[in-house]
Amino acid sequence: MNNWFKFVCFTLLAIFNAKINAQDKIIVGEKESVFSKILNENREIWIHLPKTYNDNSINPAKYPVIYLLDGEINFEYYAGMTDFLSKPPYADIPECIVVGIKNTERTRDLTPTKSQKKSPVNPNITLFSDSGGSENFTKFIQEELKPFIHKKYRAQDYSVLVGHSFGGLFAIHTFLTHPEAFNAYVANDPSLWWDNKVLISKTKDYLEKNKKFPAKKSLYVTQADNEEQQKNWDSDMTQAIDEFRTIVEKNGTLNYKHRFFEGEVHGTVSYPGNYEALKFVFKGFRTNIKEFAKNPGLLEEEYKRFSDTVGAEFIPSEPYLNVIIKFMKSNGFKESETYFMNVKNKLYPKTK
Amino acid sequence: MNNWFKFVCFTLLAIFNAKINAQDKIIVGEKESVFSKILNENREIWIHLPKTYNDNSINPAKYPVIYLLDGEINFEYYAGMTDFLSKPPYADIPECIVVGIKNTERTRDLTPTKSQKKSPVNPNITLFSDSGGSENFTKFIQEELKPFIHKKYRAQDYSVLVGHSFGGLFAIHTFLTHPEAFNAYVANDPSLWWDNKVLISKTKDYLEKNKKFPAKKSLYVTQADNEEQQKNWDSDMTQAIDEFRTIVEKNGTLNYKHRFFEGEVHGTVSYPGNYEALKFVFKGFRTNIKEFAKNPGLLEEEYKRFSDTVGAEFIPSEPYLNVIIKFMKSNGFKESETYFMNVKNKLYPKTK
Repeated sequence: MNNWFKFVCFTLLAIFNAKINAQDKIIVGEKESVFSKILNENREIWIHLPKTYNDNSINPAKYPVIYLLDGEINFEYYAGMTDFLSKPPYADIPECIVVGIKNTERTRDLTPTKSQKKSPVNPNITLFSDSGGSENFTKFIQEELKPFIHKKYRAQDYSVLVGHSFGGLFAIHTFLTHPEAFNAYVANDPSLWWDNKVLISKTKDYLEKNKKFPAKKSLYVTQADNEEQQKNWDSDMTQAIDEFRTIVEKNGTLNYKHRFFEGEVHGTVSYPGNYEALKFVFKGFRTNIKEFAKNPGLLEEEYKRFSDTVGAEFIPSEPYLNVIIKFMKSNGFKESETYFMNVKNKLYPKTK
Repeated sequence: MNNWFKFVCFTLLAIFNAKINAQDKIIVGEKESVFSKILNENREIWIHLPKTYNDNSINPAKYPVIYLLDGEINFEYYAGMTDFLSKPPYADIPECIVVGIKNTERTRDLTPTKSQKKSPVNPNITLFSDSGGSENFTKFIQEELKPFIHKKYRAQDYSVLVGHSFGGLFAIHTFLTHPEAFNAYVANDPSLWWDNKVLISKTKDYLEKNKKFPAKKSLYVTQADNEEQQKNWDSDMTQAIDEFRTIVEKNGTLNYKHRFFEGEVHGTVSYPGNYEALKFVFKGFRTNIKEFAKNPGLLEEEYKRFSDTVGAEFIPSEPYLNVIIKFMKSNGFKESETYFMNVKNKLYPKTK
C-alpha cells in the first residue's frame, strides 16, 4: 500500500503541476482538427476566442468570425490585434472569433486554375503542378469548416475572409464566384498575375453578366512596395493589381478600398495591411461614450446605422453597456444611467 | 484495491488530458513572478521566447530583449509581431525575447515627478496622488528585472524599452537620466505634457550639460492624430511632443525619428507605431540572400556594418545560415555553399 500511496501522491502532484503550468502560459488560441471529405484530409484549425467569450458574469454572446488563411504565419499577431482593436470603451471593431487555417497543399488550395510554370532558377523543375483547387477549398470552408465553427462556437452570421499572396488571389476568386459567402474580403498583395491574369478576365466577365457588384459587401486590397519584386519573375504582380483596381473603382456599388503601402515588401505588407483592413471593414462601428451622456438614444441609432451599412445585425455588447453604465454612474448622469440599464435589460433580459 | 485502481486510472487519464490540452494550445508566452525589494512587491512578467529558442537542432543562441510596458495590453500582438518580422529568409529584425511588464500602480511607476491634478469631470477627486516613482521603477528594471532575465534566459547585451502614453513618458525619462540603460527607446504618443512639461526642461538641461546625445542610441517617437483629444483636458499633449521634436531634431547625434500617424488616436497608435519603431530600430539588419550567391563575403560585411551602427555585436543566426546554405545548394552555387558552411563552422563550432 505504501507504494500505491506514493504513486497516487506523485500523480496528484503531476496533475497539480500540469494545471499550474497551464495557468502560467499566455494562450491566444486552441488547435482543432476537422476532417474534410471534400479535400479527403484532416485540416488543422487554430481558434482564437475573444476575452469575454468565457466570462461568466455576462450572458453568452455571439461573435463575428474572421477566417484567416496561412494561419501558421499570421495567427498570433492577428489574434492579439483583434483583442487590441476591440478594447472598450473605444473599440474600433467588435470582439471577433479568429479561425486560422493551417496549410497542407497551399498552391493546390489557393489557386483558381491549373497553371504550370518552369522554375526561373532551374528549368528542370516544374512549379505549381498541383494548382487549381480553390473551388474545392471554398467548398470545404463553406460546407465543412463553417458548419463546424457554428456548431462548436457561438458564431454570429457575419464573416470576413483574409488572405495574402495566393491567399489574396483566393479571397478575390471567392468574392467573384461566391460573393454571398462572406461579408468582407481582404486581399493582401494578391497574386492577380496568376495564369495570365485569369481573375482580371473573370472580373470583367462578372461585371458584364451582373452589371454591378453586390451591395453591402466590402473588399480591401493592399499593395506592397514591390520595387524589389519587379526584378523577379513575378513582375506582373503590380500591373495586375493596378488593372483590377481600375476595373473595380469604376463600379461604385462595392465598399472597396485599395491601399499602397510604401516601404512594405510582399512578405511584410500583411501586418499593417490586416490592421488597416479591419479598420476599413468595421468603419462606423466605433462610438463615442462621451456623447451618450446628453444623447443616450445615439447608441442604438449608431448601431442601427452600422448594421444597415454592412447588412448584418450588430447590437451593443453587454460588456460595452456595462462600461457605459459605469461611466454614467461615476459621472453623475443619473437619467442616462437609467436609460442604459433599460437598454441592457431589453437586449440581455437574462442578466446575471 | 478496486477503488484504488479506479482512482489511479482516473488520475492517469487526467494527466494525459492535461498534457494533450497543453499541446492543443497556441502559446505565445509564459508568466513569471519577480519579487522586487525596490518596489516592495511582486511583479508579474510575461515572457515571449522566439520560435528557435528551444530548437534542439541548433546551438543555444542569445537573443536581444525588448522590455514592453503595459504588458497586459500589448504583449500578445507584440509577441506575434516579433515572430512575423524575424521570419527568414527576409527578416527585418533579429528574433527577440519580449518581456512584458504587467502594471500594478501604473501612475506611480511611470511618472517622473509628483504632480497632482483635480479631475476635470469631478473636482472632488484628486488624480495622480501617487505619482513620481519612475526613478524607482527604472532601478527595478536595471537592478532586479534585467539580472533575473539574464540569469534565467539566454539574453544578448542589447535591449529596447517600449512604452505608450505614461509609458512613453517613462521611456523618454529613462533615456534622459540613464541613456546607457537601453540601446533603443520607443515612446508612443508620450505624455510629455506631464507636470508643466517637466521633461522638456530636462531635455534642455541635458543638452546644456552634455552638449549632445550619446551616439549609437535610437529613439522613436510616435504621435497620434489627436484632433479628438484636443477637446479634452490633456490638449497640451500634441504641443509638448512637437516641442520635444524641435529640440531633439536640432541635435544630430541621436538616431531619432518622429512619426505622425494620421487617423490613429491615442489609444490605437501603439499598434502601427510599435511595428514602424522596430523596423526603424533594426534598419540595416535585413540582408538579401540572392546577393550572396555571387558575393558571399557580403553577409559578414553587412552584419559588421549593422553592428557598428548600433554599437552592439550581431552575427548571422544559425537558422539563417542554414537557410542560406540550403538556398546555395538547391540552386547549384557550389562555391558559395562551401563558403557559408565554413562561416557556420566558424560561428557555431559545436554544430550538431
